[in-house]
Amino acid sequence: MEATANHTQIVTGWAGKDSSGKVTPHVFKRRENGPEDVTIKVQFCGMCHTDLHYLKNDWGITMYPVVPGHEITGIITKVGLNVTNFKVGDRVGVGCIYASCLNCEFCEASEENYCDQVQFTYNGIFWDGSITYGGYSEMLVANNRYVVRIPESLPLDAAAPLLCAGITVYSPMKHHNMFQAGKKLGVVGLGGLGHVAVKFGKAFGLHVTVISTSPNKEKEAKELLNVDGFIVSTDPKQMQASSRSLDYIIDTVSAKHSLGPILELLKVNGKMVLVGAPDKPVDLPSFPLIFGKRTVSGSMTGGIKETQEMLDVCAKHNIKCDIEIVTPDYINDALSRLARNDVRYRFVIDIASKSRL
Amino acid sequence: MEATANHTQIVTGWAGKDSSGKVTPHVFKRRENGPEDVTIKVQFCGMCHTDLHYLKNDWGITMYPVVPGHEITGIITKVGLNVTNFKVGDRVGVGCIYASCLNCEFCEASEENYCDQVQFTYNGIFWDGSITYGGYSEMLVANNRYVVRIPESLPLDAAAPLLCAGITVYSPMKHHNMFQAGKKLGVVGLGGLGHVAVKFGKAFGLHVTVISTSPNKEKEAKELLNVDGFIVSTDPKQMQASSRSLDYIIDTVSAKHSLGPILELLKVNGKMVLVGAPDKPVDLPSFPLIFGKRTVSGSMTGGIKETQEMLDVCAKHNIKCDIEIVTPDYINDALSRLARNDVRYRFVIDIASKSRL
Repeated sequence: MEATANHTQIVTGWAGKDSSGKVTPHVFKRRENGPEDVTIKVQFCGMCHTDLHYLKNDWGITMYPVVPGHEITGIITKVGLNVTNFKVGDRVGVGCIYASCLNCEFCEASEENYCDQVQFTYNGIFWDGSITYGGYSEMLVANNRYVVRIPESLPLDAAAPLLCAGITVYSPMKHHNMFQAGKKLGVVGLGGLGHVAVKFGKAFGLHVTVISTSPNKEKEAKELLNVDGFIVSTDPKQMQASSRSLDYIIDTVSAKHSLGPILELLKVNGKMVLVGAPDKPVDLPSFPLIFGKRTVSGSMTGGIKETQEMLDVCAKHNIKCDIEIVTPDYINDALSRLARNDVRYRFVIDIASKSRL
Repeated sequence: MEATANHTQIVTGWAGKDSSGKVTPHVFKRRENGPEDVTIKVQFCGMCHTDLHYLKNDWGITMYPVVPGHEITGIITKVGLNVTNFKVGDRVGVGCIYASCLNCEFCEASEENYCDQVQFTYNGIFWDGSITYGGYSEMLVANNRYVVRIPESLPLDAAAPLLCAGITVYSPMKHHNMFQAGKKLGVVGLGGLGHVAVKFGKAFGLHVTVISTSPNKEKEAKELLNVDGFIVSTDPKQMQASSRSLDYIIDTVSAKHSLGPILELLKVNGKMVLVGAPDKPVDLPSFPLIFGKRTVSGSMTGGIKETQEMLDVCAKHNIKCDIEIVTPDYINDALSRLARNDVRYRFVIDIASKSRL
């Protein structure tokens, strides 16, 4: 049987068809809703920097046409026969993970993100051999295992970016035991990921310092996000004055940079987590690492159970993303602005809007 | 008072006087034995790669004349009035640390190595303002706080390199909880540090794999050090075949190298420790770090209490360094061979030998 034999549902979305970095309207097919599946009417989809990388084929792995989007929220319109945990009308989300092997130690521990057969929500290969298409589209079919519930108190628009940006910072913060009131957290880069890291830090009572190349972000960081400190990373005096001051750092910058000056900000035994995925190797000077017994770790999104937990934590602490809602006819403009980090702090597409591209 | 007013004891040693990387005989003065001090007749001194860096002024911080040596063992010949923990005739050692502030949280926790005023056994500045001179010399005066006891079962020659090479690998292995039987340890670089890391790994029941650029080290690693695996790091097939196989890695290589291929050897959540201190930044590709939730940490030697603990562990498990004993007239030859890693696995100078340079 061909991979897409049961892909009979016609969907409208927006896809990149070449490396121009632009999307155009795209009609494609999704599979029928299977016994383990739910069908979701997409309401909102966040625009992650990764979308831009795939659209432009920055990593050389894009399969065009690519329908981006892995920060998806919407309403369930159909549930499969074997689905017991969701019902029609439920408010749900789908993040980066669309399939995994289900048998390995990571799948068993709901760390599907580290399964070596993990498949992503777009530009992945589903179990049936078909290419996956993401949330820049009106409807999605997903295996219920990879679907999470959006708590009632979280609006579907401001919750959407939590599905990637939120879990990407929450998971390492929890794993490295950073949620300790009074500890000092540094957040490098104040964008989609960074501003959520700041919110988690503040919610758990940490002293939060933003480290940024943009002095003009200081005012907004302090006034809107209530951060306790701000360091301009290109100012050696400011960096020097904050040497050995932080317990933890979340580095969200996806451009190539040296970790040396940032590591010097950590106390002895301090921990830094890279979540920004620069596509070229970063410079890691050994001396600040060695002389301070410091640690650099990586982390890639989170598992499904942990994503649900993160959403529940956000509901409890009233953590929402700061977003700019855009209509589908604005996606290409938003992509251009995203490329120059001109957004506070995440674009979210109102998929159900009538303003179509 | 001049810094060296009470430096009246005449000592013979061997010093580098310029960046040629060679030593010549050198007569200099050490302080009188103070109330907290012990005087040590040096018996043996290991030759660490760091000695070569200082002799050649590789880091631009050498104060000539420099008397190297921080893997020192010997016999106490004098104790100060207030010294209660040592007596004349005791077999003792001095490692990298010669002074620290004594007041900070690190000194209080006997993590003197992370005190921000730590001073090293040579090329440091002692409390009295004098430059410190190391173990390539017949006699040493040291504050008793920085002196450790060499257990009776350990010979003074094969124990000497434990004072730097030994504690440098022991401390992070303990800190990162690596002493777990059955876990898989990789040791990158089979030299002074690497071979001790292998011995700790084997002593604690780990499965130990050496990762080396030198295929010709495989035989000795398996036959003499009883390692369980050997990977030639320049062979992509061997590296690929061992992907995601190791729990921990100790990287002892001091040359610039990329951490990417090595990180791929780690399991998800695997931990790697850099102890080799490359003088140029190493390349850290973010993908293997992020996709495997892996960790790279640094570590620099260990505190005094931990050094004593390490020596006691070595005595218990009969861990000694594999050394080549050299006489002082061979130091320059040994330095040349050390520069090309031509030693199995550590030169130790028999300081008390009559064969003088």
